[in-house]
Amino acid sequence: MSFELEKSCPHTWARAGILTTPHGVVPTPVFAPVGTQGTVKSLTPEELVSLGATIVLGNTYHLYLRPSIEIIEKLGGLHRFMGWNGPMITDSGGYQVFSLAHLRRVSEEGVLFRSHIDGSEHFLTPELCVRSQEALGADIIMALDECPPYGADFGAVKDAMERTHQWAQRCQESRQRPDQAIYGIVQGGVFAELRRYSANVLTSLGFIGYAIGGLSLGEPKEVTNVVVEETVALLPRDKPRYLMGVGSPEDIFEGVSRGIDIFDSALPTRIARNGGLFTHYGRKIIRNASFRDWDGPIDNGCDCYTCCNFSAAYLHHLFKCEELLAYRLATIHNLRFIMSLMVEIRESILNGSFPSFKESFVVNYQPTDEETRFSQRQKWIKRRDKKFTP
Amino acid sequence: MSFELEKSCPHTWARAGILTTPHGVVPTPVFAPVGTQGTVKSLTPEELVSLGATIVLGNTYHLYLRPSIEIIEKLGGLHRFMGWNGPMITDSGGYQVFSLAHLRRVSEEGVLFRSHIDGSEHFLTPELCVRSQEALGADIIMALDECPPYGADFGAVKDAMERTHQWAQRCQESRQRPDQAIYGIVQGGVFAELRRYSANVLTSLGFIGYAIGGLSLGEPKEVTNVVVEETVALLPRDKPRYLMGVGSPEDIFEGVSRGIDIFDSALPTRIARNGGLFTHYGRKIIRNASFRDWDGPIDNGCDCYTCCNFSAAYLHHLFKCEELLAYRLATIHNLRFIMSLMVEIRESILNGSFPSFKESFVVNYQPTDEETRFSQRQKWIKRRDKKFTP
Repeated sequence: MSFELEKSCPHTWARAGILTTPHGVVPTPVFAPVGTQGTVKSLTPEELVSLGATIVLGNTYHLYLRPSIEIIEKLGGLHRFMGWNGPMITDSGGYQVFSLAHLRRVSEEGVLFRSHIDGSEHFLTPELCVRSQEALGADIIMALDECPPYGADFGAVKDAMERTHQWAQRCQESRQRPDQAIYGIVQGGVFAELRRYSANVLTSLGFIGYAIGGLSLGEPKEVTNVVVEETVALLPRDKPRYLMGVGSPEDIFEGVSRGIDIFDSALPTRIARNGGLFTHYGRKIIRNASFRDWDGPIDNGCDCYTCCNFSAAYLHHLFKCEELLAYRLATIHNLRFIMSLMVEIRESILNGSFPSFKESFVVNYQPTDEETRFSQRQKWIKRRDKKFTP
Repeated sequence: MSFELEKSCPHTWARAGILTTPHGVVPTPVFAPVGTQGTVKSLTPEELVSLGATIVLGNTYHLYLRPSIEIIEKLGGLHRFMGWNGPMITDSGGYQVFSLAHLRRVSEEGVLFRSHIDGSEHFLTPELCVRSQEALGADIIMALDECPPYGADFGAVKDAMERTHQWAQRCQESRQRPDQAIYGIVQGGVFAELRRYSANVLTSLGFIGYAIGGLSLGEPKEVTNVVVEETVALLPRDKPRYLMGVGSPEDIFEGVSRGIDIFDSALPTRIARNGGLFTHYGRKIIRNASFRDWDGPIDNGCDCYTCCNFSAAYLHHLFKCEELLAYRLATIHNLRFIMSLMVEIRESILNGSFPSFKESFVVNYQPTDEETRFSQRQKWIKRRDKKFTP
């Protein structure tokens, strides 16, 4: 497991590198599609390869509950189970426990929660987290973190951060598989002071890579950007940096500009299934009546299977009929869009044109009202969750 | 458009032939996957080709309502709209109008119905049926028929049959595209006397092919078999024979034995999405707990993408999680199973071993209880529909 920096942008903190893992090489900056339950929704592993995916993410929380770590271990690990033979990350389950599960009781020892599927009770510790991820067998595993909701006060965020540091150390100590790389997760909410402290503590623990967790939870984008900037500045230059849960084209540009190497997010695939499609002119809603008889691709500048073979009118029809193929063709389009974008971003870093490439992309890319509404709704949901969380 | 008989089985009425259409050649006996709304659910056209599909069916009723014939015509016809460049059948819409639509009022002129989607009122005539199918542009189109439910009495079935004959003639007379083949549909319910009469009348009208409609609606299989047998005996030997809505491996064998050349049915794809999978040992329910940790393919004798790449345990997991990939992998398996079976059936007819091939297949193929329950439920639904139809 190594990370080699190839080139840094002279005008921003953007950088291009190569991440080497037991299952292959990953050019960075990279976006990891999310395969929550052992599948990137609607796609086969071969399709992921053809879209240009070089690394995928699996969710430990979901797989732990269903089908269970034991079954996946019995079936030879997550790579073999889901048929993906490339590099893979698994997350720690921390974020999901704190956002999806019920009855969360956090102690120094770990976190007690109830499954969102059947209400069964489970106790997640740093040791169980590592043992689970070792059984799943990803190339990159994450230390267990506590992820407080956006809006939590300073004291609560500080407590969660300190537990995260203790758990990070216990995760490192309980590791048994030297072929896996473990990344620590910087927490500290929107408080720059805590983020700086967390970055320093985790760095002192000597991880193979560093993630920034607990962002993009509803806070204003300017806040995200400042926190990322301040955190990255304190992380070792020669280690990969992973911004968790970030995902839209415009946010990826902001992350890359600030020195992020790895991104993951369910956003491109989730909005695809809702009919929200990336184009070079912004996000389009395929269900809109304007596409009813549109005899052309969704995006003229896209080389994906969907755009090469089907009209927007056909996709509109499939969505109106709620046909399974709709979700698949839309997912292919959005993922290919992001994968191509990452390749272009990387090339622009390598040839020194990243700032102008970013500028020209952002000028054309107009977030729709729909997008604003979506992000506003997300904020509403987060606020409500915060209010009603036990 | 031609049909050439290659070989007949000396012991049964089974026969192998070649159907030539403007979009390609179709070896028979053949099974046409159903692409109701301009897509074989969950699959791309390329996947259909790779599964061995040589012809697909589109449903005029569904496409007429959504996205509309006008839109598909504007987009260049159904082939171009859905991206399928091979042979295609469209049905007349008759069966769907009489089973899905509401407020059906049948007159000599045509049938008034309300859309099952939005309640809008439409009037389907033989002329509109032909005009719609000419705009869709399939290679084989069907004459408008009236399809009474199973259980209708002799008088009602006779009336429906006579209207079907008049409509068949009007369909022929209103045709304007000589590049399409039109098939007539024999009706007459479960009454052998009516079926014989219908076969004779339609034959006298001189169609390019003949379909047997109005079967597999809940009647006992012995009845289906007798009706098919008596009808086929009266149809011209040199014309293709199409048994509409038949679909399961065991029923296909019975149809082939009685001289059927073309089959279509949504059954293989529909039960796939419900987790019912064909194997050489009968139909299996992938959700059953026995597959929870089954590290092997669904069917050892299957060469489909799903069986070659994924364990039954993985498919079981995908179904439990209601993942989109589940429906797709199951559809691929069931369609490939049927496509391979059709190839084997054809080869066995060509090399004279059809009866023994049928025998050996049927001995191993044990319909499950689930299958019986499914067909019983279908009967219940049909009975209830009959009772509550306006």
